[in-house]
Amino acid sequence: MLQLYIGNKNYSSWSMRPWVLLRQAGIAFEEKPVRFDSFAPGSQFKAQLAGLSPTGKVPVLVDDGLVLWDSLAIAEYLAEKYPDKQLWPADRAARATARSVVAEMHSGFTALRSACGMNIEAHLPETGALIWRDNAGVRADVQRLVAMWSALLQQHGGPMLFGAFSIADAFYAPVCMRLTTFALPVPQPIADYVRRVQALPGVKDWIDGALAEADFREFEEPYRLRR
Amino acid sequence: MLQLYIGNKNYSSWSMRPWVLLRQAGIAFEEKPVRFDSFAPGSQFKAQLAGLSPTGKVPVLVDDGLVLWDSLAIAEYLAEKYPDKQLWPADRAARATARSVVAEMHSGFTALRSACGMNIEAHLPETGALIWRDNAGVRADVQRLVAMWSALLQQHGGPMLFGAFSIADAFYAPVCMRLTTFALPVPQPIADYVRRVQALPGVKDWIDGALAEADFREFEEPYRLRR
Ligand SMILES: N[C@@H](CCC(=O)N[C@@H](CS)C(=O)NCC(=O)O)C(=O)O
Ligand SMILES: N[C@@H](CCC(=O)N[C@@H](CS)C(=O)NCC(=O)O)C(=O)O
Repeated sequence: MLQLYIGNKNYSSWSMRPWVLLRQAGIAFEEKPVRFDSFAPGSQFKAQLAGLSPTGKVPVLVDDGLVLWDSLAIAEYLAEKYPDKQLWPADRAARATARSVVAEMHSGFTALRSACGMNIEAHLPETGALIWRDNAGVRADVQRLVAMWSALLQQHGGPMLFGAFSIADAFYAPVCMRLTTFALPVPQPIADYVRRVQALPGVKDWIDGALAEADFREFEEPYRLRR
Repeated sequence: MLQLYIGNKNYSSWSMRPWVLLRQAGIAFEEKPVRFDSFAPGSQFKAQLAGLSPTGKVPVLVDDGLVLWDSLAIAEYLAEKYPDKQLWPADRAARATARSVVAEMHSGFTALRSACGMNIEAHLPETGALIWRDNAGVRADVQRLVAMWSALLQQHGGPMLFGAFSIADAFYAPVCMRLTTFALPVPQPIADYVRRVQALPGVKDWIDGALAEADFREFEEPYRLRR
């Protein structure tokens, strides 16, 4: 049985991607939570991953002794292992575009990622409004998201970015959570896509898990002093 | 014919990866240089990419109207299109590891990447020594590289990370250039791997192109005032 090591569901955007992908595709796996206490060398988190993840990060997928330590590598591995699940779009050109879109997420959107960390249980519209006013990088990232999603939804007709659910939606699911938490302004069709993603059973399961955690990590919430 | 849009060979580490991959695999392509004047909105660079790259970045691969705008998506596309070139390792487990290694590069090594920008024609051992002394993030990144490469070279017996040349070597080729430019200290087997990468015909061609450019871009060299 596949084993997926993940961080806190409330915060761990990288963990969310392969988890949602597996769950939404109906692939059975065992969930191995590794709680965020801190990312410092002596932390329990690092101790639990020692000897497993060469980068000391989550997610990690273990398949019968084979260890994969990056969300995108995990997605490609699953796409190869379960071809019938069509995790990538079947059409060659759409698949190439989906890979561009996913790789862009994997190495980009740094302003949005660092200013608006994923925090599923929080509702921070005022923090979001200040970020929106002051952080041009965040505005540029959201503008790019809106342009990308609008074009894809129009081209493929929705409901997901490439028609049916694919790795691309799993990769942008954490961004959907950030848009909601920080109430960043987006056009209606984009807000509708965000809602559709959050209503996917695999995403809903993750959100429910995050809400059940109640495990407040200060270092993941630099934008507030306390709750 | 494939068209690959690239930035300055001296500086553009992301462009180097698919270019080296294509050249080293012997896949014919047309090179489309897009000179770095600046990355500001009004720049020639952005003007040339407008209507082509949705992110305004290089590299971009165009295949008969299909546009791919990320180095990793390009690599996956080429691996799919030219299966006989074995751009990924043929063995399933090795391929999964190679994808982890490549994805780690794609989203990581940020300290090394930002402190030691690729600058092929430069030789900056003193700058490198100061960075090495002061920047713990760079030391940690190099430590991780050394651990990763050592394990792979031992496991697969070299000369490249997975035995024969693969996407993994193309992705780490720019890092090899940085280690040399900044003379960062690495154990002998790692220095030997760096030399073997730099001696690959596809890498040598890129280096020769970089040396021929003589196109000094101040914003790519924040660590010096002038030459
Ligand atoms: N590129 C990696 C990034 C993984 C990552 O950064 N994970 C975070 C949690 S969301 C982590 O484990 N951080 C621990 C640390 O930075 O020490 C992936 O795609 O899986
Ligand atoms: N994740 C992209 C990154 C591409 C990238 O950042 N390219 C740089 C040149 S090496 C660029 O075009 N920068 C222009 C800018 O940042 O505006 C890839 O893998 O292709």
